[in-house]
Amino acid sequence: MKSITINIPDWLSKRCEHKDFKRDEEKMLFAIELARLSIDNGGGPFGAAVFSKDGKLISCGVNLVVKEGLSILHAEVVAITIAQRKLNTYSLSKGGHFELFSSSEPCAMCLGAILWSGIKRVVWAADSIKARSIGFDEGPVFEASWDYLKKKGIEIEGGLLKDEAARVLDYYKRINGVIYNP
Amino acid sequence: MKSITINIPDWLSKRCEHKDFKRDEEKMLFAIELARLSIDNGGGPFGAAVFSKDGKLISCGVNLVVKEGLSILHAEVVAITIAQRKLNTYSLSKGGHFELFSSSEPCAMCLGAILWSGIKRVVWAADSIKARSIGFDEGPVFEASWDYLKKKGIEIEGGLLKDEAARVLDYYKRINGVIYNP
Repeated sequence: MKSITINIPDWLSKRCEHKDFKRDEEKMLFAIELARLSIDNGGGPFGAAVFSKDGKLISCGVNLVVKEGLSILHAEVVAITIAQRKLNTYSLSKGGHFELFSSSEPCAMCLGAILWSGIKRVVWAADSIKARSIGFDEGPVFEASWDYLKKKGIEIEGGLLKDEAARVLDYYKRINGVIYNP
Repeated sequence: MKSITINIPDWLSKRCEHKDFKRDEEKMLFAIELARLSIDNGGGPFGAAVFSKDGKLISCGVNLVVKEGLSILHAEVVAITIAQRKLNTYSLSKGGHFELFSSSEPCAMCLGAILWSGIKRVVWAADSIKARSIGFDEGPVFEASWDYLKKKGIEIEGGLLKDEAARVLDYYKRINGVIYNP
């Protein structure tokens, strides 16, 4: 195999051509909207986006696991990976202060991916209990896991607009969306 | 952005055209050799490979973080991702029983990636204390993290040929290899 190509859905690239954002709530509503659009486009019910400190949208991610056939492609990993390619660096910390907004609490893998990405602030809406309640496993994430990231200087904030995010997860359950964990 | 392409080094693809393996020690020596070849080709000091239960080599991975400019590209993630593309599934558990051999204990991100990959058995050589001793952060990995994977039916075994793997990490330190954590 010479290379691995991950296709970014057209609708996602188009939705990512967006004006600047101001308040945290705006950024989170956008991440939650991505989650809903992902469902409507046949994907998993998770959305994430990377912003610069001054609110510029850098990248968007949705869960592409089933669509691309790769288990690493959670929304957070997709958003981080596109941001790193756009900014041409494996560490976003080298280019300034970048923030990740996610519609759901990052799973064990994404928590680690955030640590290595150079992201300086993470905000999520629905907590992992909610994602687990509709059937998604979140893996071994403990309070000490997030504490580890905090000690590395990463700001962590959960629960912003969690009811709006929960409604998207409930919608996914209602339409019998694929719960794809092996 | 229409797509993300991850280039697989030619030397890695060539080295991955290999006969079948029998004993665990052979598989691990191969993963450790990949780590050393990675250093000699300008990459990070980590190697991993996926095998079928009967010892067929499915895929190879090395750390491509600096080379490809993407922080997710740890050796384990590269090996798992190539295996999923080769077998055309986001869960290796659907295609049978697959095993991951890694020259070092998987970090927090890779531990989560293993859980979602459908890998049924993980074996590593050097433990995370060794990787940390030469300057690599491994993230929040606790005994409870591995216990979580065990409860999901994944076999876990650490320390196989750890001295051989430690020599490769010491070599990387001696030549002042890049410690790239942000």
